[in-house]
Amino acid sequence: MRTVLIIGVGAGDPEQVTVQAINAMNACDAFFVLDKGEAAAELTEARRALCSRYVTGSYRTVIIPDPPRDRAAADYEGAVRDWRDERARLLAEAVERELPDGGVGGILAWGDPALYDGTIRVLDSIRAAGHDVGYEVIPGISSVQILTARHRVTLNRVAGPVHITTGRRLAAGWPAGCSDVVVMLDAGLACSAYRDLPIDIYWGAYLGTPDEILIAGRLDAVIDEIASVRAEARARKGWIMDTYLLRLHPEPTASSD
Amino acid sequence: MRTVLIIGVGAGDPEQVTVQAINAMNACDAFFVLDKGEAAAELTEARRALCSRYVTGSYRTVIIPDPPRDRAAADYEGAVRDWRDERARLLAEAVERELPDGGVGGILAWGDPALYDGTIRVLDSIRAAGHDVGYEVIPGISSVQILTARHRVTLNRVAGPVHITTGRRLAAGWPAGCSDVVVMLDAGLACSAYRDLPIDIYWGAYLGTPDEILIAGRLDAVIDEIASVRAEARARKGWIMDTYLLRLHPEPTASSD
Ligand SMILES: C[S@@+](CC[C@H](N)C(=O)[O-])C[C@H]1O[C@@H](n2cnc3c(N)ncnc32)[C@H](O)[C@@H]1O
Ligand SMILES: C[S@@+](CC[C@H](N)C(=O)[O-])C[C@H]1O[C@@H](n2cnc3c(N)ncnc32)[C@H](O)[C@@H]1O
Repeated sequence: MRTVLIIGVGAGDPEQVTVQAINAMNACDAFFVLDKGEAAAELTEARRALCSRYVTGSYRTVIIPDPPRDRAAADYEGAVRDWRDERARLLAEAVERELPDGGVGGILAWGDPALYDGTIRVLDSIRAAGHDVGYEVIPGISSVQILTARHRVTLNRVAGPVHITTGRRLAAGWPAGCSDVVVMLDAGLACSAYRDLPIDIYWGAYLGTPDEILIAGRLDAVIDEIASVRAEARARKGWIMDTYLLRLHPEPTASSD
Repeated sequence: MRTVLIIGVGAGDPEQVTVQAINAMNACDAFFVLDKGEAAAELTEARRALCSRYVTGSYRTVIIPDPPRDRAAADYEGAVRDWRDERARLLAEAVERELPDGGVGGILAWGDPALYDGTIRVLDSIRAAGHDVGYEVIPGISSVQILTARHRVTLNRVAGPVHITTGRRLAAGWPAGCSDVVVMLDAGLACSAYRDLPIDIYWGAYLGTPDEILIAGRLDAVIDEIASVRAEARARKGWIMDTYLLRLHPEPTASSD
């Protein structure tokens, strides 16, 4: 039996790594890197920097290149599934090849492994396919937490709910009955569609890194600035990672209170 | 000017503290503890253990006792507001009394300071009342992240949304259009009302501590077990902290995909 540790390492700031994650990194015989397109180079470099900062002793890194993806397939969902299965197969193969029996491998997950990250599902597929690979998950600080900390705001209002969603879903409609909404994976500021509503936005890009940008204010008053700052930063660096909290006023109250 | 650091210290496991939090703890001249009823003794002890583990050198702790709360007031909201203002005033007074000019104080927040925690709001009130107190927020691993890590599940399904709410709100109705729901601050397993729906529950109590309890399964199949384990644990320890993720099947799809 081999064990893989899925280690959440925070979303940019090397100090936002837990003692548990550091201990886990030091328990690994090898690190496996699932290579993901866009921004990959810089994130791979960030992970390397974490290892060289925290791992005492030598360590080995094994890159699992992304299998080719058939984006033109008639059966889109089937093609995604095939691609995922193939990626899981490549990882299982690498784990069995690179780790001794009883060995421990690490996968460094950006932010928290539970939030919009496929690594847990990849390990589930590996096990479902019958490989004798155990795994554990170590939580990490997510970009959402850096966002709220840097803006010094709470995620929820007093005893209120909070909704975490994607840009694509926000574009499809405002989440029913919810007034505090975090948006991730947004390719193009889907919140712009709501600029006529009384919303405060807390926006952050490259959070926790030296390139961090923070902008907050009434949505209608700051959205144009965010859009131009975002476009400029994206053009300069070649990629962007941003997330934001939208706070709609007044807060709708639950039927019971 | 004095500065207060609101330091998220994770929700039970002393290893789930970040390097940033440890450095922040070591920068503090004194720690301020806002004393909160139930479970307070054990949480205060957990914070003390964190300080003695991570703070090199001596440190000082200042307890701010909770002001009395007028629970019988006709104007309930006004009474809560008065109580909050008075608590903020007591903290400001202690900060100004206990810290030298330019000094740094720490408040250790359980889990992540952005999630169902009033400390950020207390500091906002202090500043709104005109005190020359700056503050910073340091994110911490929240109980929700320990929950998902220990159960090895993701918070969201592929590109799906997630809703975080309270037991009280869940009792008032299932969140519209949402199939992945995290419940906190639930005094009595409000999810029981939904046992006839096809829901998977991932439940955890005292997460990250030696008393941790985890139960997962189809809601209808495990809710009675959770209820009895929960009642027994609560009776034994005198208090309980639990949280859970509900995953309703099948996942509703956004109108756009
Ligand atoms: C694939 S998801 C991974 C999220 C990650 N697991 C986490 O916990 O933050 C990527 C999305 O997370 C957000 N994100 C990740 N890191 C970020 C950062 N440093 N600054 C701003 N947003 C970030 C962006 O919304 C991005 O589209
Ligand atoms: C006042 S809120 C504070 C939440 C905290 N800021 C966090 O990030 O986890 C308290 C609620 O958090 C959850 N909670 C906090 N610590 C927990 C633990 N160790 N195990 C299970 N639930 C916990 C429970 O739902 C509890 O009712």
